[in-house]
Amino acid sequence: MHVVVTGAAGMVGSKLIARLVKDGGLNGKPIDKFTLTDVVAPERPAGFGGKVDITTGDLAAPGAAEKLIAERPEVIFHLAGIVSGEAELDFDKGYHVNLDGTRILLEAIRHAENYQPKFVFTSSIAVYGAPFPHAIPDDFHLTPLTSYGTQKAISELLLADYSRRGFLDGVGIRLPTICVRPGKPNKAASGFFSNIMREPLAGLEAILPVADTVRHTHASPRAAVGFLIHAAGLSREQLGPRVNLAMPGVCCTVAEQIDSLTRIAGPKVAARIKREPDELITRIVSGWSERIDAKRAAELGFKAENNFDEIIKAHIEDELGGKIA
Amino acid sequence: MHVVVTGAAGMVGSKLIARLVKDGGLNGKPIDKFTLTDVVAPERPAGFGGKVDITTGDLAAPGAAEKLIAERPEVIFHLAGIVSGEAELDFDKGYHVNLDGTRILLEAIRHAENYQPKFVFTSSIAVYGAPFPHAIPDDFHLTPLTSYGTQKAISELLLADYSRRGFLDGVGIRLPTICVRPGKPNKAASGFFSNIMREPLAGLEAILPVADTVRHTHASPRAAVGFLIHAAGLSREQLGPRVNLAMPGVCCTVAEQIDSLTRIAGPKVAARIKREPDELITRIVSGWSERIDAKRAAELGFKAENNFDEIIKAHIEDELGGKIA
Repeated sequence: MHVVVTGAAGMVGSKLIARLVKDGGLNGKPIDKFTLTDVVAPERPAGFGGKVDITTGDLAAPGAAEKLIAERPEVIFHLAGIVSGEAELDFDKGYHVNLDGTRILLEAIRHAENYQPKFVFTSSIAVYGAPFPHAIPDDFHLTPLTSYGTQKAISELLLADYSRRGFLDGVGIRLPTICVRPGKPNKAASGFFSNIMREPLAGLEAILPVADTVRHTHASPRAAVGFLIHAAGLSREQLGPRVNLAMPGVCCTVAEQIDSLTRIAGPKVAARIKREPDELITRIVSGWSERIDAKRAAELGFKAENNFDEIIKAHIEDELGGKIA
Repeated sequence: MHVVVTGAAGMVGSKLIARLVKDGGLNGKPIDKFTLTDVVAPERPAGFGGKVDITTGDLAAPGAAEKLIAERPEVIFHLAGIVSGEAELDFDKGYHVNLDGTRILLEAIRHAENYQPKFVFTSSIAVYGAPFPHAIPDDFHLTPLTSYGTQKAISELLLADYSRRGFLDGVGIRLPTICVRPGKPNKAASGFFSNIMREPLAGLEAILPVADTVRHTHASPRAAVGFLIHAAGLSREQLGPRVNLAMPGVCCTVAEQIDSLTRIAGPKVAARIKREPDELITRIVSGWSERIDAKRAAELGFKAENNFDEIIKAHIEDELGGKIA
């Protein structure tokens, strides 16, 4: 099986590839080739004995999408995209990369003869826009309040139409906030959800800019990779025409996150969280969804962690070699 | 005030222009110029003393959109588009006209300096896809089952994002089925809703291809024009970020339509309806929405007819000079 990953140098992309290599295949089928693409060169997967093509550049550039699918890869994980903050600051770049890049790739597939790949697309809960009901049901409308969310919502609509017309077997998954995100603290407004876990566990202080009562839905990087793999294994019959799905996650408050951290790593670690309320971040976060029902995803077998303790344990196992600083 | 109408040669477009001329303005402001465009030349509005520019051609052609807005028209009614059946048969043409045509026009407006027109966009209930709840609420998701519906849903998302970013003052209105549609019977699957009223009233037979129990939501051409004019008068504050609205209509069964016809025109007229069940049309219609709540539209002052009798009376007044054959 030949698998393509776009956005392969990103956090979720590189973890997906590592997991596929470790599993030795995708949903029971061995993988003999990867084509990995991103704006910066993705790493060659360690321990993989098959062929690897690595490409870099703009997917929306003339000919790039056609080249990517020239060998008719069976599965395409389309993860490429610029993030929410950048898409809001640079209107043209956001539409070019997140919308046109996706549409051009879908068009290349449509024009390829006798070709109908499995196409897994990562959407986001940014497709939702406040005000929200107590919990967001599967049939809640998409009224994004960012250009990023708009581009994801449009890509979902294209994916559904191209699937319905039989050009590909598409599935779109709306990822919740990924937590605990590895790496350095970043300036994303959502960064603190991860920072207040990752930094204390590494022996460092972290700033909590919002109230302990803020509620949000999270899934670990490990769960996100699991969503992608599970999505690739779903049949057209299981999905029906509504191919875009909200993913499950752990819904909890910041206080509950901190309780988990205290339980697992002790009060000394939890004491490394410093409360420094930030009005701007508080206002941004107040417009975000709290609870997502994700009933269909659960029925289709998608699995996130059951509680925030499991999210912290996954981080300690996957990122810290089992050790807490 | 300078008003642009795209799709100006169409049924709704030409009725909108006639109404604006008759009213002598738009929401209290006199109109001194119309720019009317369509793929075939729109008629010069009868009885209008101001300037009229008439253009024909593809709105998505290079420079066409820039030219259309060169004089900074205050209000743009964007009605242009190809219909559902054609968009399903010709995938490329549908996306070119219904999606790219709209996006290119929005882009031209974004790039025009110091310009923020009122932009009224006609969407459609085709943005919804079965299965449906008993009545479709305002926050129901858009899962279109046609390429036409997909193109309208994507245009709605673009309109909301361009409005949020301050490039224009957009409002999108999802028209219900327009009934009684004047003109000849056509092959649209929804044509019979109008045919079984219009043809008997003109002394001709009409075929009913579905069961009397089929339920649907209708608004007259007169009501549709009223929606457009009302939409143009709504402020950004009234609309908020959710600028796309389901329009109200009369929800009734085919049997109730025929009861209205009998009441208004007598049993001899109603007897001109011949029942010839058609499996294909029955199947297509079974996937359509029945009831639409349109609560927000009602709160914002949009008004349709109160019952089907009023829809028939509007047709007799507007199309038949008050006379029944």
